[in-house]
Amino acid sequence: MVHERASNSNGRELTGVIHGGDWQGAVDRYGWKVEEILDFSANINPLGPPVGVLETLKENLPAVQRYPDPASRRLKEALADQLQVDTGAIIIANGAVELIYLIMQVLKPDRVLVVEPTFGEYRRAATIAGAEVLPVYLDPATGFTFDFDRWRPELQRSQVAFICNPNNPTGRLLNPDILHRAASLCREQGVFLVMDESFLDFVPDGDKFSLVPQAAAGPGIFILHSLTKIFALPGLRLGYGVGCPDMVRRLENSRDPWSVNILAQMAGVAALADKEYLKKTRELIRREKEYLFHNLSGLAGFRPYYPEVNFILTNIQNGCLTVSRLAELLARKRILIRDCSSFPGLGPAYFRVAVRDHRANKRLVAALKEIMEES
Amino acid sequence: MVHERASNSNGRELTGVIHGGDWQGAVDRYGWKVEEILDFSANINPLGPPVGVLETLKENLPAVQRYPDPASRRLKEALADQLQVDTGAIIIANGAVELIYLIMQVLKPDRVLVVEPTFGEYRRAATIAGAEVLPVYLDPATGFTFDFDRWRPELQRSQVAFICNPNNPTGRLLNPDILHRAASLCREQGVFLVMDESFLDFVPDGDKFSLVPQAAAGPGIFILHSLTKIFALPGLRLGYGVGCPDMVRRLENSRDPWSVNILAQMAGVAALADKEYLKKTRELIRREKEYLFHNLSGLAGFRPYYPEVNFILTNIQNGCLTVSRLAELLARKRILIRDCSSFPGLGPAYFRVAVRDHRANKRLVAALKEIMEES
Repeated sequence: MVHERASNSNGRELTGVIHGGDWQGAVDRYGWKVEEILDFSANINPLGPPVGVLETLKENLPAVQRYPDPASRRLKEALADQLQVDTGAIIIANGAVELIYLIMQVLKPDRVLVVEPTFGEYRRAATIAGAEVLPVYLDPATGFTFDFDRWRPELQRSQVAFICNPNNPTGRLLNPDILHRAASLCREQGVFLVMDESFLDFVPDGDKFSLVPQAAAGPGIFILHSLTKIFALPGLRLGYGVGCPDMVRRLENSRDPWSVNILAQMAGVAALADKEYLKKTRELIRREKEYLFHNLSGLAGFRPYYPEVNFILTNIQNGCLTVSRLAELLARKRILIRDCSSFPGLGPAYFRVAVRDHRANKRLVAALKEIMEES
Repeated sequence: MVHERASNSNGRELTGVIHGGDWQGAVDRYGWKVEEILDFSANINPLGPPVGVLETLKENLPAVQRYPDPASRRLKEALADQLQVDTGAIIIANGAVELIYLIMQVLKPDRVLVVEPTFGEYRRAATIAGAEVLPVYLDPATGFTFDFDRWRPELQRSQVAFICNPNNPTGRLLNPDILHRAASLCREQGVFLVMDESFLDFVPDGDKFSLVPQAAAGPGIFILHSLTKIFALPGLRLGYGVGCPDMVRRLENSRDPWSVNILAQMAGVAALADKEYLKKTRELIRREKEYLFHNLSGLAGFRPYYPEVNFILTNIQNGCLTVSRLAELLARKRILIRDCSSFPGLGPAYFRVAVRDHRANKRLVAALKEIMEES
C-alpha cells in the first residue's frame, strides 16, 4: 500500500514555508478589502507591471481558450535575445520556484548546501526530495556577508549548493570576485551550483554580478530568475532558468508540459519589450531605499541593514517592542510587513520591508513613528 | 557529480508526449494567423468560457500584482459547495496534469497500471518517477470496452492504477457496476486508484459515474478533474483533485506553494457560479456529437466509435488515405485534427476530433467530403 508510505524518506516533517504576500489571510482575519492593504511583506516592483503588459493581457484574454505553447517559443526567443544566450540554454517556468522543485527531483541529491538565512523554498524542496540540508549561517555581526572560508569546507560534502544573489532576506550582494571563486570551486568539485538571481534586476549594473554566461556555456551552474518580482506579476507566475542545453533538456523532459500559462507567456514577451522599464525601476529603488533606510535608522532600537536591492532587513533591539507586536500594530493600520522569525539563523527580532513608491514608504515611516511614540 | 546522473533510474528514454492543441506549431509551420485555425485536435468546450469568466478576468487584471493565495481558499470553498465534500478533501492544481506528476513523486510506486490507449501523461509521469508501466490494452474489436477480467490480474502487481473515465481518446465510459467493482478491488488490494474524471462534466448525468464521494470518504481513491476542458480555459491552467484529507495534505506538503495562478483561481470561482453553463454544454454536445458521428459514419472507409463525450475517435480503413495524409490535407484547409498514431495500442489508422459548434462541425464535414472526393 504505497499510499501509507511516508512521503519523505528521512521522516522529516514537511510543513509549508511562511512567506510574505499573504493578503488573503489578512482579508480573512481582519475583514478588510484587499485594496485597503498596504503590503510591504512581498518584494514586488512598486512601479507595477510595465504599461504594455496589462494592455496585452486585456487584448488577448480570449487566448485562454488555447493551450499554452509547451515550448514557450516566443518568450524563449525574447529572453535569448536579451540575455545573449541560445534558446536551448533557457527553460521557462511557472515562477522560479517551479524550477527549485524540478531541479531537486531530477538531481535527487543526498546533501544540499544552503546559505541561511535565505529564501525558504530551497530548504523545503531539498527536504521533500529526500536530501539532507547542510546550512551555513551568515553572521549578523558582519552584516550577513557571505563567508567563503566557512562555506568552502561544507561544499565538499554537498552535491548541490544554492546561493541567492542578492540574498533574500538580507539584501546583500556577493562581490564578483567571491562569486567567481565560488562558481569555479563548484565546477572543480562537481557540485551543481544553483544561483538564484531573482532580485538582480533591481541592482544597478546587475549584469556584472550575473553568472548567466557561465551557466549557458557549460554544465554545473544553473541560474534561477523570477520575472514576477521585477515585472510585478506574482499572480501570473513566471520565471526562467539558464543552464547548459543538456541540463535544460533534462528538466524539460521531467515536467508537466503545460506548467506555464499562456497569459504569463504573453506578459513576459510584452514586459521584455519595454526597454525603459528597468532603468526607471532602478532609479526609483535607488532613491527610495535611501529614504526608507535613513528613516528606519532614525527609530530608536531599529537597526536596518543597508540594502543593495528592493527590500530592507531590520533588527529591532528595542526592549519595549517585539517584531510580532510591531507586525500586529502595523496590521491594525492595514500595513503588512514580513516578520522574519521563520528564517533559520535570524531569531525573533528581525523584520523585512519591501521598498515601495514614495507615498507608500512615507505612510510606513509615519505609521512606525506613531507606534514608537505610543509604545 | 549528481548532474551527470541519468534522470530516470531505469534508463528509459524520457521524451515528450504528443498532444493536440499545438496551434503554435501550425502557425510556425504554415505561416497562418492563429485566428484562422479551426482546431479539432484539442477537446475544449465549444461554448467558450462562461460569460462571467472573461468579464471577471478583465475587471481583475491588476490582481496579477498580488501573489496567488497558496491555499486557493475561495475556489476550494466554491468547489466544496458544488461537490458536497469538505474543503480538506480538495486540492486545487495548475491543471489536472500537475497532480499526475505530484502523485507519482509522492507515492513513488514501483509499478503503475495504465489502461491503453489513454492520456499519455500517466505513462510519462510514472516513467519519470522511475516506475515500470504495466499496460492493459483495450480491444478495438469490442469498441474499446473496459475489460475487467483482463485488468484484474495486472492489478495485483501494481501499486497505483490510472483509469480515465470517460476515456481519452476512445470516448468510452465505464458502466457504474464495473466502476464500483474496480474501486472496491483497488481498496481490497491496497492499490491506489487514480480516476481521471476530466471529461465527465460533458456527460449527461455525469455524477452517476463519479467516484468523488468515495474518494473524499477514505484513503486509496483519488479523483483528477480538469477545469480547463469543460470551462474552455486551457491557456489559464486549472484543475483539482479529490481525496482523503490525509492524502490531500501530503500532496500540498510536497509541492510549490504558488503553482496555481491568481487569474485561474478567480476564473474558477466565476465559472462555477454559472449554473446554466453545464446544462447548455451538455445539450450542445449531445446534438453535435450525433451530427458529427452520423457524417463521419457516412464516409467510405471511416469507422467512428460512438462517443459518450465531446470527442470522437475514428478508424480509417480506406486504402487510398492514411491518417497522416488526411491530417496534412486538412491542415492545408487550416483544420487541425489529432493524429492518434502516438497512442500505444492504436496504431497508425486512427484520428480524434473534438465535437465543436455546428458551424465548425459543418466545415469539418465539408472538408472531409472534399478530400474524399478528390482522393
